[in-house]
Amino acid sequence: MPAISLADVLAAADRIRPFVRPTPVHTSGTMDALAGRKLFFTCENFQTTGSFKYRGATNAVQKLDAATASRGVVTHSSGNHAQALALAAKVRGIPATVVMPRTAAAVKKQAVIGYGGRVVECEPTVADRLRVVNEIAATTGATLIPPYDHPDVIAGQGTAALELLADVPDLEAVVVPVGGGGMLSGYCVAMKGTDPAVTVFGAEPLNADDAARSLATGDRQPQVPPNSIADGLLTNLGDLTWPIIREHVAGVFTVTEAEIVAAMRLVWERMKLVIEPSAAVGVAVVLGEAFEGVTAGRVGVVLCGGNVSLDKLYW
Amino acid sequence: MPAISLADVLAAADRIRPFVRPTPVHTSGTMDALAGRKLFFTCENFQTTGSFKYRGATNAVQKLDAATASRGVVTHSSGNHAQALALAAKVRGIPATVVMPRTAAAVKKQAVIGYGGRVVECEPTVADRLRVVNEIAATTGATLIPPYDHPDVIAGQGTAALELLADVPDLEAVVVPVGGGGMLSGYCVAMKGTDPAVTVFGAEPLNADDAARSLATGDRQPQVPPNSIADGLLTNLGDLTWPIIREHVAGVFTVTEAEIVAAMRLVWERMKLVIEPSAAVGVAVVLGEAFEGVTAGRVGVVLCGGNVSLDKLYW
Repeated sequence: MPAISLADVLAAADRIRPFVRPTPVHTSGTMDALAGRKLFFTCENFQTTGSFKYRGATNAVQKLDAATASRGVVTHSSGNHAQALALAAKVRGIPATVVMPRTAAAVKKQAVIGYGGRVVECEPTVADRLRVVNEIAATTGATLIPPYDHPDVIAGQGTAALELLADVPDLEAVVVPVGGGGMLSGYCVAMKGTDPAVTVFGAEPLNADDAARSLATGDRQPQVPPNSIADGLLTNLGDLTWPIIREHVAGVFTVTEAEIVAAMRLVWERMKLVIEPSAAVGVAVVLGEAFEGVTAGRVGVVLCGGNVSLDKLYW
Repeated sequence: MPAISLADVLAAADRIRPFVRPTPVHTSGTMDALAGRKLFFTCENFQTTGSFKYRGATNAVQKLDAATASRGVVTHSSGNHAQALALAAKVRGIPATVVMPRTAAAVKKQAVIGYGGRVVECEPTVADRLRVVNEIAATTGATLIPPYDHPDVIAGQGTAALELLADVPDLEAVVVPVGGGGMLSGYCVAMKGTDPAVTVFGAEPLNADDAARSLATGDRQPQVPPNSIADGLLTNLGDLTWPIIREHVAGVFTVTEAEIVAAMRLVWERMKLVIEPSAAVGVAVVLGEAFEGVTAGRVGVVLCGGNVSLDKLYW
């Protein structure tokens, strides 16, 4: 029994509509020529808080009943989910606490605080992170909204797929970056429920390829210590996301760090879009050699976010 | 008698529609909060060839009769107009020659060649540039399409204003970067002809402030050797653009190099848009102290282009 159904995604779309931006689809003749097919880029970098994570966080926060919501929400994340949840809570007028390792970059803590969230530090271990999150939940009554392995989060991320389908007729395939699998599993449910003919592919750094290995073996594989510039894709598949991915994803393509960086530069330079490395992973896949074996002529590419440090260049 | 009328802009819009992208208007809560008013950013960085110049070049090229067109077009530019004209000619299936000083960066020559244009080098003086352009026009019969001081170019640039007016109800003012004044004069004619209540402002680097000085004195002032990162705004006002600007522009605001760079970073970081320094000039204006005296609550800001070297950062 999958964690969510198409009905959950449709309900999420209605629930978050007043709060979330519909994101545009961009196209590029240059990119089409390079890829040898027609590409449709979903610009989740333009989503509020700079990534698709705001969809899932908003759905989870808005779905809470008033009494539960009033006690606030808590999560553990040093990435885009942290900022997304902080703002989603602020919009609902409830407190958000984000547990971050004390080693996380100051800029990430500042981003959460900037959106009205509270940051609580923990030791950089899974055990201590859980201890602190549980302690906060117990003392405040806050609801845990994890970054991806939660039905309401998955359903919220899936709303992006509904927009892509509405915008692009005759879509044949879609390429979705995969970390914990929240976006990918949400896409699977939304796509397969709406138009089963669309093939769903995952996109992953070779240096963080647990999803590719999991799909290849049919058993969820642990992430070996990942080492990729695509810092949104370092997590392992979740208990809820993995079964959906296993059932629906036709394949996961992996790309090298050099391919990710080259794809990111290309999108900045030719499409004038600031995207983060995780978003460049899907672009690198559709430009890569392995993808040439895919026959689909009209392919969606999820540009999942644009939160990247501008203190340095990457090429 | 102004060089063009609203009818010319409307005709240009019809003429270029099959070739030119309608560009979206982006908004940002962060930017609105900083500016203390509602801002509407026109994304000409998403225009084909990466700048608004493709509008004017396409209008001029498409308007040529078949016999004249077949002899090709020629221009002098080392900037966005060069690329725009090269592609506009390619789309019509006619040759384009671009005269560039031999000192121009190789990447600019490559960009023209990449769009199918031919580059001819000249000495880096106005006299030699004119000599070479005239020689090419005389020997090939090519039509000169200058970067801004041409009725069809001005009319083409003005089509962007029609789109902004159609997208944003109750616009009160618009801020347009000014170099040679092609975009600004086109905006004036389109805006004033359609909705005279919209106030049109120019935006200029303090280090290339000929338009500000011209408007202040009522007489066209020469550009003192300009020195700005906003390399699209270094030229002097034209014979055709200046009278239109003098009649319609309510004021030209100037900004420092540091303000331009800070505005550019802000747009990259918060709006996820790659814009070039010239486009950041208008953003810097609406965020600057001098603009606080403007009462307009709904202000358009022209992001004129996104062609910027990604080999280095600017902050």
